[in-house]
Amino acid sequence: MPTTSAIPTRERIVLASAELFRRQGYAGTGLKQIVGEAGAPFGSVYHFFPGGKEQLADEVLRTGGAFFLALYEAIVPPAETLNAGIEAFFAGAGLTLEATDYADACPIATVAGEIASTHETLRVATADVFESWLDALARDLGTAGAEEPRALALSLLALLEGAFLLCRALRSTEPMRAGAGSALALLPQPKEIR
Amino acid sequence: MPTTSAIPTRERIVLASAELFRRQGYAGTGLKQIVGEAGAPFGSVYHFFPGGKEQLADEVLRTGGAFFLALYEAIVPPAETLNAGIEAFFAGAGLTLEATDYADACPIATVAGEIASTHETLRVATADVFESWLDALARDLGTAGAEEPRALALSLLALLEGAFLLCRALRSTEPMRAGAGSALALLPQPKEIR
Repeated sequence: MPTTSAIPTRERIVLASAELFRRQGYAGTGLKQIVGEAGAPFGSVYHFFPGGKEQLADEVLRTGGAFFLALYEAIVPPAETLNAGIEAFFAGAGLTLEATDYADACPIATVAGEIASTHETLRVATADVFESWLDALARDLGTAGAEEPRALALSLLALLEGAFLLCRALRSTEPMRAGAGSALALLPQPKEIR
Repeated sequence: MPTTSAIPTRERIVLASAELFRRQGYAGTGLKQIVGEAGAPFGSVYHFFPGGKEQLADEVLRTGGAFFLALYEAIVPPAETLNAGIEAFFAGAGLTLEATDYADACPIATVAGEIASTHETLRVATADVFESWLDALARDLGTAGAEEPRALALSLLALLEGAFLLCRALRSTEPMRAGAGSALALLPQPKEIR
């Protein structure tokens, strides 16, 4: 059990759940394991989340989605060019996969695939998160001169998500490097020669 | 319980598992539900699969992978051009998603994401399946003149897998249409003007 007593119980539960959900999925994670990892009493889950595991998962998905969006905003828009920003984002994804032994990928993908047909509330949460990422990406693609920013944003996000899945299955960052190359090829070409 | 008595029990178990695994994942599917859907006695799972659910899932992943490869071989290589074949494959994926209320996507992706960090035997099964698809795709991309067939195959598969996930989460085929457009843009350009 990690010594995390400086962090409030509610937050420890959310953090532990986020880690477990993305490594082993929603159905494969029990409340008992969550409170164990969080170092929290069993009853505390229902105290903070009266709706139980589904309410907890809804918050975990939305929190993880907001964090990933903040990561995007911190990396891509400040970069010198959109190309450089996208390249850095894909490279960071590959490094994170390696550093976590291919466990830590997208904060919502594992659960998103698992619950899309079975838990409508959680599906809506994943849709909201994906849309928030697509909005930010389409905004920057539009600024960079993309003709169809929304369609291109969908493709770049699909490339990233698909590469996450392939990297984890193959235990290699080769799919992420290939995805990065294709992402750059799809970006609008800078108007001036650099 | 579906009337499938013409199909041998072992096959009914594999078919029912394939459907349940891809809709609700590996951890979320119990043996009880599998035998219920298959119309098979409970003990029959261990009779045919002494290794239990994991051995059954291994066969389900490999069978589903071989089926999807056969689908690819039936659609893409016979097409007049690689572009037309890839376009038809993405279009078929979108139609299948719509026809199955966004439940039926890749035969292995839901499980692949869920078990990559927790069930090494099954991870290897998903890796073998992905590699078999990548081999076929890289072969056709090489024939069509791609400079880096393997990297492009990885990107196209990532696009398809990512689009499957986004389509299911957003309950829309928009990501598949966007992915198809980007896939075509990434393909080697035909040498002759058509």
